Amino acid sequence: MRIAFQGESGAYSEAAALRYSEHTDVLACESFEQVFDAVASARASHGILPVENSIGGSIHRNYDLLLEHDLPIVGEVQLPITHNLMALPGSALSSIRRIYSHPQALAQCERFLRSLPEVAAEATYDTAGSAKLVRDRQLTDAAAIASERAAQVFGLEILKAEVQDFSDNITRFLVVSRSAEPDLPADKTTVVFSLPNEPGSLFKALSVFALREIDLTKIESRPIRGRPWEYLFYVDLPVARHDLRCARALVHLAEFARSMRTLGSYPSWRAREGARQAESA
Amino acid sequence: MRIAFQGESGAYSEAAALRYSEHTDVLACESFEQVFDAVASARASHGILPVENSIGGSIHRNYDLLLEHDLPIVGEVQLPITHNLMALPGSALSSIRRIYSHPQALAQCERFLRSLPEVAAEATYDTAGSAKLVRDRQLTDAAAIASERAAQVFGLEILKAEVQDFSDNITRFLVVSRSAEPDLPADKTTVVFSLPNEPGSLFKALSVFALREIDLTKIESRPIRGRPWEYLFYVDLPVARHDLRCARALVHLAEFARSMRTLGSYPSWRAREGARQAESA
Repeated sequence: MRIAFQGESGAYSEAAALRYSEHTDVLACESFEQVFDAVASARASHGILPVENSIGGSIHRNYDLLLEHDLPIVGEVQLPITHNLMALPGSALSSIRRIYSHPQALAQCERFLRSLPEVAAEATYDTAGSAKLVRDRQLTDAAAIASERAAQVFGLEILKAEVQDFSDNITRFLVVSRSAEPDLPADKTTVVFSLPNEPGSLFKALSVFALREIDLTKIESRPIRGRPWEYLFYVDLPVARHDLRCARALVHLAEFARSMRTLGSYPSWRAREGARQAESA
Repeated sequence: MRIAFQGESGAYSEAAALRYSEHTDVLACESFEQVFDAVASARASHGILPVENSIGGSIHRNYDLLLEHDLPIVGEVQLPITHNLMALPGSALSSIRRIYSHPQALAQCERFLRSLPEVAAEATYDTAGSAKLVRDRQLTDAAAIASERAAQVFGLEILKAEVQDFSDNITRFLVVSRSAEPDLPADKTTVVFSLPNEPGSLFKALSVFALREIDLTKIESRPIRGRPWEYLFYVDLPVARHDLRCARALVHLAEFARSMRTLGSYPSWRAREGARQAESA
C-alpha cells in the first residue's frame, strides 16, 4: 500500500495516512489534483484528502475533485489537529522574529500570533515545509507552526504545544483508490445527488432512507455553480451499499434525483478503530 | 445606521456592509467577538459577519457566535470575492519580492503565488491591512492581495486583477442587530435545531416543512462538540417567520427537536436586490 497525500513529509495529511495504516508507504504530492493523478496512474495505490474540518466546515473543493474523478472512496480517517510552535533545538521563544506556516494553520492560530506583536507571520505552501525551511536554513530567529510529527521529521524542538485558537479541531479525510475494495467490511456510504427546485423535493428524497430506517450521519446542501437555485446534496449513510435496504433506497432515490452518484461504500473510522482495538487486545 | 465589521477599512466585510446599505457608517473591529460586542453595547446599530463561502463552505465558528449571542439576523449580503494584487503607483510586478495578505486570501491565490517563485508570501491579519502596510511603509518591492476597494482606500495601483485560483468565489454575510426590525419585509428565516440520534429523526423534522410546502434553501448538519452522535442542523427557509405556515411548522418542529432556535427572519439578498432595482428604475 502506498498512499499519496498533499504536502511535505510531516504534513497533517501524511499523519492521517499513517493513522489509516501504520504499515503504509507514502507519496508526497504538490496539489490535490496530483494526489488523484498519482492514484489514477498507479504510482500510488491510495490517495488521502481532507474533506471536512470541525471549525471550518466542508472543503467543497475536494468534493468537486471527487466528482470530477472516478476513484471510489474506500475509507476515512478522523485526525485531531494540534498545531505546535517549533524551532531549532536551543532557540528561545524570545529570540523568534518570524513564524512560518501554511495560511490555514496561521489562520487557526490567529489569537496566539496576535499575542506576539514583535513576530512576523510568513505564509508557506505547507506546515511541514515550514519546519523543513527552518531546519534547512538553520534559522535561529525563526519558528514554524506544524504537527508534532513534523518536529520529529525535521529534528526541531517544540517551543509551545497546542497553539491553535480552538481545541476540538478535527479534520476528516477520505481515502480513495482505483478499485472499490475496502480492507474491512463497509458500514458507511457517501452519496451525492441533485434535486429539482421544487418544495418538498428534499423531503421526498430523504423518505427513501427514512422508509427503510436508514439514518443520515451527514447532510449538506450546496448551490450548483452556474445553475442558480439548483442544489447538490452530500449525504453519508451508516450502512453498506450492498445492504439490501441501502441498495433499494438508492434505486428509489434515482426516481426523484436529477443526478445521483455513490462516491463510495467503505468502513467508517469508528469501525476501523474498533478493528484495531480488537486486534491489539 | 452604523455597521460593525471585522477588519480594516477596505476589508471584504466592509465592502459587504456598503453593499448592504450605501448610506451606512461603518465601524472596524479586530475580531468577530468584538463585532457582537459593538452591537450589544450600541456602539453600532448592526454587525456583519461572513458565514459561508462557495469554495470553503460554512464558517461554523460564526454560527457558534450567533448561538452564543442574542442578536437576531436582520439581513444577508452575497458578495463576489475578487482578489487583486496591488502596489504603490509605479511599482512593476518584476520588482515585487514580498506579497502580504490574510492567510485565507493567500490560500485562495495559492496557484498564482506558486507562479511567482522569487516572491515570499507574508501573512497579515487582514487583506486591507496589507494594503495599508504597503502604503504606510512606502514599500516599493512589496505588494498586497486585497479588494479593489482597498486599492482605492490606500491609493495603490492594481498590478493584476482577479488573482484568485477559482472564479465563482462568493461569500455570504449575515447582518445582525439588537432588535429584529428588518428594513424590508422578511422572506427568509434561519433556524437551528438539534435532534435525538434516531433513524428517521431528520425525516420527521423535515416533514413539518414538506407538509406545508415550505422548501429548504440550505440544510447542513454538524456534529455537536462534546456530544458524539448528536447533530445540530442549520436550515434556511424561503418564508417569513410570521407567515402562518412557517409559524405552524416551527411549533410542529418543536415537538421533535431536542432544542430549537430561530436565529432570525429577514429579507433575502434576492429581495434586497429586487427592491434596489425597483427603486432605481
